[in-house]
Amino acid sequence: MPRYTQLVEQLPSTVPFVGPETQERNSGKQFRTRLGANESIFGPSPRAMAAMAQAGTECWKYGDPENHDLKQALAAHCNVGPENIVIGEGIDGLLGLLVRLMVGEGDKVVTSLGAYPTFNFHVSGFGGELITVPYVDDAEDPQSLLDAAIKSQAKLIYFSNPDNPMGSWHDAATVQSLIDDVPDGSLLCLDEAYGEFAPDGVLPEIDVNDERVIRMRTFSKAYGMAGVRIGYAIAHESLATAFNKVRNHFGVNKIGQAGAIAALADSEWLEHVKSEVALAKTRISDIAIENGLNPLPSATNFVTVDCGAGAEFAQALVKELGYLGVFVRMPFVAPQNRCMRISAGMPEDLDILEECLPKALKSVRDNLS
Amino acid sequence: MPRYTQLVEQLPSTVPFVGPETQERNSGKQFRTRLGANESIFGPSPRAMAAMAQAGTECWKYGDPENHDLKQALAAHCNVGPENIVIGEGIDGLLGLLVRLMVGEGDKVVTSLGAYPTFNFHVSGFGGELITVPYVDDAEDPQSLLDAAIKSQAKLIYFSNPDNPMGSWHDAATVQSLIDDVPDGSLLCLDEAYGEFAPDGVLPEIDVNDERVIRMRTFSKAYGMAGVRIGYAIAHESLATAFNKVRNHFGVNKIGQAGAIAALADSEWLEHVKSEVALAKTRISDIAIENGLNPLPSATNFVTVDCGAGAEFAQALVKELGYLGVFVRMPFVAPQNRCMRISAGMPEDLDILEECLPKALKSVRDNLS
Repeated sequence: MPRYTQLVEQLPSTVPFVGPETQERNSGKQFRTRLGANESIFGPSPRAMAAMAQAGTECWKYGDPENHDLKQALAAHCNVGPENIVIGEGIDGLLGLLVRLMVGEGDKVVTSLGAYPTFNFHVSGFGGELITVPYVDDAEDPQSLLDAAIKSQAKLIYFSNPDNPMGSWHDAATVQSLIDDVPDGSLLCLDEAYGEFAPDGVLPEIDVNDERVIRMRTFSKAYGMAGVRIGYAIAHESLATAFNKVRNHFGVNKIGQAGAIAALADSEWLEHVKSEVALAKTRISDIAIENGLNPLPSATNFVTVDCGAGAEFAQALVKELGYLGVFVRMPFVAPQNRCMRISAGMPEDLDILEECLPKALKSVRDNLS
Repeated sequence: MPRYTQLVEQLPSTVPFVGPETQERNSGKQFRTRLGANESIFGPSPRAMAAMAQAGTECWKYGDPENHDLKQALAAHCNVGPENIVIGEGIDGLLGLLVRLMVGEGDKVVTSLGAYPTFNFHVSGFGGELITVPYVDDAEDPQSLLDAAIKSQAKLIYFSNPDNPMGSWHDAATVQSLIDDVPDGSLLCLDEAYGEFAPDGVLPEIDVNDERVIRMRTFSKAYGMAGVRIGYAIAHESLATAFNKVRNHFGVNKIGQAGAIAALADSEWLEHVKSEVALAKTRISDIAIENGLNPLPSATNFVTVDCGAGAEFAQALVKELGYLGVFVRMPFVAPQNRCMRISAGMPEDLDILEECLPKALKSVRDNLS
């Protein structure tokens, strides 16, 4: 038997998410619509598609390990220096690297109970100790996070704005206060994966001189390139450079680098996606209301719907929707797990939702009564 | 300042390889031919290209985190179970995960002095202590590796067959002996990145019941998909499953998963590439001999050429070739660094090599005399 590290011996082999493909293989049938992973069904910019096709003809070459051109493009886009940008295999990959840089066995990390599980997976994977604070009114609570960080002398604080899985958000002033109050010795990981969907006044200004915060962003959501695997971080140069100590230098694929540059340049497509998402969210909310459910406000590309009858009911509903061919997910922990989370879709996707939701509700109510 | 782990504080921010793009940016001009990274200029199978173009249309979806279909295809190809396969972002990514699973601070790891530097990067990155043994006759030496592993009680032994950067190889019986003699408590990481190019009788039979060895393979070399980032490992189920504890589950891009499946199915293209590589290696050897240099035998897709006059001369020659537009690399440490390493190329690439090598040699000899 190989001798694993003591830490690894203790880790469970659990997987943070079961993918929709696994669910399809288990059930033996394909979903009719895929509204569970907050992907962007509207797809990438046609210019990104063309750039990826072009890059594909050169895919025998390793990608540039410096990610130079993409860094330059992102630096211009974010009005920071290229030395402030880190590129990785999605935010998931970057979260893993960030945790590795900072968290050793027993180090404290603060997050909200029910926030992004992949972050927690990484913290546990490096032996960190998670300290969680509850959501307040279905939103992450900056003051609780700060209080817990101060009390535990946490090295890292995770905060997503807008929030996944609830879709809630704080305004820029509140987030800036959170950044300003990060205690000495802590770093705020500000996950802005859904930032492009947020209304004006939600994302605080970027100040790369501030060593207390690192931002995470992605091409997987608004840019519609989840399967391509490009995420990025924005941070003080010293922190951004530290990723070079541990990152897989040739890990970011060449096709994705090219696609991301082109996607970033197509602001028109981004606006198109945002307007489609806004329409879709309105319709999802309408469908929820028509069925007696309560859609929560959302600054993301999904609507979290309060199903109004506790976790067991929500779970049965998600399962029944899946059985009818509608892939949706739900928050993992109470009290958020009274909800389900429905990603924006094309009109034809939402037609299927509209058709299936009343059937699923009836079936669940019949079974539970 | 963020509080990094003690280990990270000690790590250098060095990068294992400087990419050719960085060299091009520094020099301000493009290489005329790219023969330094052991990529496959012959590219991927047209069927892989078509599959990737098709998958591109669905790149808004996350890739299957189980990599189910690719695992099935690889399992059939390798005549093992899907539970014996791990997919990752190239061998580099898998090496990092393997090291993370096994190596903590102070743990001993054995490799050959001058073998794959990215493996060493990962070992250092997790605090492991590298113990190196010399190459013997430009080949890795199984007995020295074993002796060092026994003496140091190493957790991991790295061995590549065929070898990079020297192109040398051992026959299957020798490698099987190495596997058989791995001491208790050690694991052999057998890097077969170049395995498809090896003559018959070089790759030992796979026995996934043997817990003493994990094999690393890739789509970056013979399959011509370096920029796509798909590597895989073959191991005992218990070890393969352990990767789930630490891997970035959604890290393998969707386009690459589809491309790899199609590439694997096109054995005709693989044979085409192998025959092009064989022709190219013959021509590289001929060019080297015509110029008074000594090409070493190779079971890979590159030829390591003994430049016959020590490290300084080889380094100057590689630099001069670069100046003339020919990207090649050289081994990092003595005595292998008397050589340069030239990847197989198209006839037109090798025309450029043929044109530039005598000029570069003359220039270096003039400068050094």
